[in-house]
Amino acid sequence: VLAEHWEECDIDLGPEQVLTRVIKEGRRLISEIGRRPDELAGVGVGLPGPVEQATGRPISPPIMPGWDGFDVPGFLDAEFGRVAIVDNDVNIMALGEHFSVYPGVQNLVFVKVATGIGSGIIIDGELRRGSQGAAGDLGHLNVPHDEQVVCRCGNVGCLEAVASGAAVAAKLRAVGIEAHTSADVVRLVKAGSVEAVPLVRQVGRTIGEVLASVVSMLNPSVIVVGGPLAEAGEGLLAGVREVVYRRSLPLATQHLRIVQAQVGYQAGVIGASVEVIDHALAADQLHTLLASA
Amino acid sequence: VLAEHWEECDIDLGPEQVLTRVIKEGRRLISEIGRRPDELAGVGVGLPGPVEQATGRPISPPIMPGWDGFDVPGFLDAEFGRVAIVDNDVNIMALGEHFSVYPGVQNLVFVKVATGIGSGIIIDGELRRGSQGAAGDLGHLNVPHDEQVVCRCGNVGCLEAVASGAAVAAKLRAVGIEAHTSADVVRLVKAGSVEAVPLVRQVGRTIGEVLASVVSMLNPSVIVVGGPLAEAGEGLLAGVREVVYRRSLPLATQHLRIVQAQVGYQAGVIGASVEVIDHALAADQLHTLLASA
Repeated sequence: VLAEHWEECDIDLGPEQVLTRVIKEGRRLISEIGRRPDELAGVGVGLPGPVEQATGRPISPPIMPGWDGFDVPGFLDAEFGRVAIVDNDVNIMALGEHFSVYPGVQNLVFVKVATGIGSGIIIDGELRRGSQGAAGDLGHLNVPHDEQVVCRCGNVGCLEAVASGAAVAAKLRAVGIEAHTSADVVRLVKAGSVEAVPLVRQVGRTIGEVLASVVSMLNPSVIVVGGPLAEAGEGLLAGVREVVYRRSLPLATQHLRIVQAQVGYQAGVIGASVEVIDHALAADQLHTLLASA
Repeated sequence: VLAEHWEECDIDLGPEQVLTRVIKEGRRLISEIGRRPDELAGVGVGLPGPVEQATGRPISPPIMPGWDGFDVPGFLDAEFGRVAIVDNDVNIMALGEHFSVYPGVQNLVFVKVATGIGSGIIIDGELRRGSQGAAGDLGHLNVPHDEQVVCRCGNVGCLEAVASGAAVAAKLRAVGIEAHTSADVVRLVKAGSVEAVPLVRQVGRTIGEVLASVVSMLNPSVIVVGGPLAEAGEGLLAGVREVVYRRSLPLATQHLRIVQAQVGYQAGVIGASVEVIDHALAADQLHTLLASA
């Protein structure tokens, strides 16, 4: 990573405003390191919703008003004159973690536990997106025998409604403890809060119920738990492991590792770069092939 | 299919006895059509348990005593002098259905509902087996909010323990109706039994609970329900659809088809043949490549 910039952004402002801001900061970063936009191999973008792989357009993203079907690659291409690769944000985090820490692992599931819960699935060495780019939508899997909280998707019993950072913070507020974000929860856990520690352990168990199904279906060899709530560390992971090793068949768990993410906030940046590099190399190979034909 | 033979076989007899019988019938079929064993491209085999892809050996198969780690390909190669490709039986059924009916579909899940319940997963056009060949093990996914029946795997709440052909037959016997196999249940449904029809519909709903998770995770465009209990037809499928369309997110279901298997008992034979042909063609390409190098 040659240069970086971080800021919160209100996705509700819509694509033109948000992407114009991204372009401005992108141009500033390029000039900061003394390079030119035409030296870019491409631009990689992660969005918090499903993205149609062929077009790079968000499709019916539940938390991105105004973005449905917007031509994100076209908007960025026009500015940078370079191809823009757009993908779901959890997918690029999965790619970043896989590339950086588990390059030889063929089957890996990356789970992001944040305000929502999502996952990126690598099978036989490649990220898998499904037919509409909606694969990995772990957050709305049904949690067996759990309380019937109504989820923002309109269903009841969704994992995300009971085990996300937002859900834990709400439970803490209900017992009079000030907490709003995953970071607040993590801070409380690290301080040894007698309310927060068992709640996070229980969240780990609930996530474990759903991951046990994923293990039986996909037989991965590594599950990486990342996102802000994973910063709570072993308390969360212990809950996950406890249920996965109890619920899944021995054959699927005998060589399974369940680990905390290592790359942190840069996972998405690295994963998006990997996608751009793959695309650029594939185009190079195509040119070589066409030139030799 | 040039020649075929069907018989029930007791897998408990162990690999030598069962495979010796297979070899004898195989040789008879080849001579029946006036061909020689050395004209075979290979031998394809499906086994009712997890198979290690690299070696073709069954690994910890729960219902195949004496088969664990047995060198099935070696035993058959020695007899036929041709490569034997061994895979899980539901995997080859998935391949057979995919090859025969949905050759252009990239993401397909095939579910076999029989004495047990299993699935074969095709993602981005290829069958996916997971790290130990255990992928697709749908039968031991936890069913939300269902009765706590103990499964043969030792856990409670497994899909297979409440929604297999064996489970339905047991429920029918509990109300005094003679039924032992999936075929018995199907016969009762076709005859309009007031006990069997609603039970099978409910089994469809229960399978739908688990398939809703599969849809959210993998975003397939086709789910094929096969195996003997699927012969019950629309009653079972209606239950599956009812729950999948209610539980899964709209994006993942808008283009999803849930259909009954069409190929029937030959699906496994066709799928095993497809695997052998793929292997033979890959070997051919390798020879051409080595010859030209």
